Amino acid sequence: MLSGSTQRRIRRVQRPRRIALLTDFGAGPYIGQIRLLLAAARPSLPVVDLVADLPPFRPDLAAYLLPGLLRGMPSGTLYLCVVDPGVGTARAILAARIGADWLLAPDNGLLVPLLREVGDGVVLWRVDWRPRVTSATFHGRDLFTPIARQICAGSLPAATPMAPTAIAGRDLPRVLATVCYVDRFGNLVSGVRASDVPADTVITIGGTPIRRARTFSDAAVGEPFWCENAFGLLEIAVNQGRADSCLGLHLGDPLPLLD
Amino acid sequence: MLSGSTQRRIRRVQRPRRIALLTDFGAGPYIGQIRLLLAAARPSLPVVDLVADLPPFRPDLAAYLLPGLLRGMPSGTLYLCVVDPGVGTARAILAARIGADWLLAPDNGLLVPLLREVGDGVVLWRVDWRPRVTSATFHGRDLFTPIARQICAGSLPAATPMAPTAIAGRDLPRVLATVCYVDRFGNLVSGVRASDVPADTVITIGGTPIRRARTFSDAAVGEPFWCENAFGLLEIAVNQGRADSCLGLHLGDPLPLLD
Amino acid sequence: MLSGSTQRRIRRVQRPRRIALLTDFGAGPYIGQIRLLLAAARPSLPVVDLVADLPPFRPDLAAYLLPGLLRGMPSGTLYLCVVDPGVGTARAILAARIGADWLLAPDNGLLVPLLREVGDGVVLWRVDWRPRVTSATFHGRDLFTPIARQICAGSLPAATPMAPTAIAGRDLPRVLATVCYVDRFGNLVSGVRASDVPADTVITIGGTPIRRARTFSDAAVGEPFWCENAFGLLEIAVNQGRADSCLGLHLGDPLPLLD
Repeated sequence: MLSGSTQRRIRRVQRPRRIALLTDFGAGPYIGQIRLLLAAARPSLPVVDLVADLPPFRPDLAAYLLPGLLRGMPSGTLYLCVVDPGVGTARAILAARIGADWLLAPDNGLLVPLLREVGDGVVLWRVDWRPRVTSATFHGRDLFTPIARQICAGSLPAATPMAPTAIAGRDLPRVLATVCYVDRFGNLVSGVRASDVPADTVITIGGTPIRRARTFSDAAVGEPFWCENAFGLLEIAVNQGRADSCLGLHLGDPLPLLD
Repeated sequence: MLSGSTQRRIRRVQRPRRIALLTDFGAGPYIGQIRLLLAAARPSLPVVDLVADLPPFRPDLAAYLLPGLLRGMPSGTLYLCVVDPGVGTARAILAARIGADWLLAPDNGLLVPLLREVGDGVVLWRVDWRPRVTSATFHGRDLFTPIARQICAGSLPAATPMAPTAIAGRDLPRVLATVCYVDRFGNLVSGVRASDVPADTVITIGGTPIRRARTFSDAAVGEPFWCENAFGLLEIAVNQGRADSCLGLHLGDPLPLLD
Repeated sequence: MLSGSTQRRIRRVQRPRRIALLTDFGAGPYIGQIRLLLAAARPSLPVVDLVADLPPFRPDLAAYLLPGLLRGMPSGTLYLCVVDPGVGTARAILAARIGADWLLAPDNGLLVPLLREVGDGVVLWRVDWRPRVTSATFHGRDLFTPIARQICAGSLPAATPMAPTAIAGRDLPRVLATVCYVDRFGNLVSGVRASDVPADTVITIGGTPIRRARTFSDAAVGEPFWCENAFGLLEIAVNQGRADSCLGLHLGDPLPLLD
C-alpha cells in the first residue's frame, strides 16, 4: 500500500445498488467470467451490460460516448468501464464517485470527457490496492471486478485522493468530430454534442450533402441525414439503411463538421 | 389524454412476473439502457433477451417469428417487442393481454400473426399515455420501457380499448414463404408453419432439390434439408454447414415453397 | 427409465446456487428461450452466459477451452454446456458432479479434457430421464434445461452411474495445437496449456517468427506474440491489432507448435 493511501468505509446511502458494465468485450468469455464472479459474490445485485461493443483498443473514441450513455440513467449505479489496451502496464486504476454513482476505469483517458462535464461534482481516487494474483491480460476480471465487489460491499480498497487535473488524457479535445461508434444498424455516432451544432449545418461527405432531420422517418428511405441521437450526440444515419456502407465511413474516420 | 382513454388497475394475478425483450438492438447500448432503467425500478424482476437480433427495420419479417418464439414459454411474461423503423412518427403503441401474458409493440404489423393465432383470447388497447419527454429516435427506452414498468407495477397507463381488426398490417398474409430470420448457424427460418407443409414437399433452390429431414444428423454432412424447427416453423438448414452461404439465400429472399 | 437407472436426491450443500451457460448459441432466440424458462422456474437463481460464442458444430475444439474457462470460477455453479451437432441422435447426456459444481453436456467429447484434468474428483452419470415431448433440433431447451432445473431443485433425474473411461471422445489428444477459439479482438486461443510450452519457444507462421511476451504492451503495436492468456492457454495475439487477419489464421487451423 502506498503512503497516503488508505482504505475507506462507504456510507450506506453511497453504496451501489447495481453494476453496469461498459466494455469492448463482446459476447465472449470475458464478460462471462466477470458476471459469474459477481453473481457468486452478490447474487441479488443486478448486473447489466450497458454496452459490450465499445470500439476495441480505442479508449480515445469510447471516452466521448460515456457522457451520453450515462445521461438519464438511474442514480446508485457502479459503472465498470474497461477499454484497456494498456492492460498489464503500470497505468493507474481510477475510482470516481459522483453523488451516489461510482465509476471504475483505467487511467487512459476513458473518463476524461465525462469528468470534464461533471466538473466539481466528482470525488476521485487512484486505487492502489492490488490482489495477490492477477493475470497479465485480463484486469477486468482480476483487478476491476474485486474492486467493484468491495465498493458494493461498502469499502473502497486502499486508494489515494487525486485531482481530476492529474489524470491521463486531460488534454483530450472537448469535442471529437470523428466516428466514435458504429451501431448494429450502421449508424455513425460522433463525439460531438448535437446541441453544439447549428441546426442548419450541412455535412458534406463524398460530395453528398447531409442535412439535419429530427428522426429516421423525416428522411426518405435510403437518404442520409444527421440528427441528435438518443444520447444527445450528433449521429449520421440513413432511413432504413446502413450509413456506414452508404457513405463508406468507418470507426475512427473524421467527420468534416467544422468546415 | 384522449377522450375515452383511461388508466386501468391490473389485478395482481395478471401482473407480469418477468419481462422478455424481443428486439433488433444487438449487443449495443440500446438494450443496455433499457435494462439499467428496469433494474433500478424493479431489481428482482427477471429481464431476459428472448431475442436481440431480429431483422433490423423489418417488422414485416419479424412478425412471423413471434408465434413460434412465444410457443411453450412460461405464462406471466411481459413481451416488450421493438422492431420499430417508424420511431418518431405518429404510429400507435399497442398493449395486448393474453391470459396472464402481456405484449407491448409498435402498431406496425409486428403483432399481427400472433394475434391472428390467438383469436378471441386477446384484450387489446392503444396506449395513449406519453411521458413528458422522449427522444425522437429511441422510444424503446423512452416510451415502451416506462409503460412496461407501470404494467409490472400494476397499472396500465391511459389507453383506449381497440378491436384487433383495427391494427395496422391486419391484411398481412397468413403465411410468408420468405427467409424471415437467419440464425447464427446460417439456418434459414421461414414464416411458414412446418405442419402446414406436406412432408414429401421438395423445395428446389438453384437447381438443388431440398427434402425434409427430422433433424440435422438425418442429413449427410454438408447436405441441405428442410425441417420443422424448434419454433414450429419451416427451416432450411445444412448439417454442420451454413445454409445461407451454401444456397446463396439472404434475409427477405422468397422461398419457392408453393410451386 | 433404464434398468439400474434411478432418480437421486441431492444434498442441500451440493445444490447449484447459479447456472452458467456455455454454448455456441450467440445472441439469438436459443439462449433467450432457455433463460425465460429458467427465470420462470427459479426467478432468483442467477443465470450467466459464461460464453455464448463457442465454435459452432465443434465440440472437439470447444472441449479444450473448458478447463481454462472454469479455472478460478466460484464453487456451487451448474455449467450447462451445449455444443451439440448430434442433437436428435442417440448420443447420451452426461451429468458430472465435481465437489459442489455440476456439469451437463452431450456425450460428444466436450467434457473430456476437463474430466481428464479433474481425475478421480468426479462423479459421473448418464442421464436416462427424458421429457415426454422434445423437439428434434433444440435439446438445449427441451432436455438440458429441465434436467438443470431439477438438479437446482435438489433432484438428479433418472441416471446411471458411469465410469469416466466410458465417455465418447476419451481418446482425444491431451493437448490440441490448433486454433480452438478466435475472440472478438482476433486473438487466437489454442488448446495448449501455456505452462507446458518452454518460454523461449518461437512459433513460425508464414515465415513470421512469433515469440513469447507477458502481455500486449510488451510487444510493439502491430507485432504478433504468444502469451499465457487469462485462461492459462497459449494464445497468439497482436498488440492493438487482429492476429487472425494479420496472420491469416482461422478457427481449426493447426499451429506449428511442436516443430
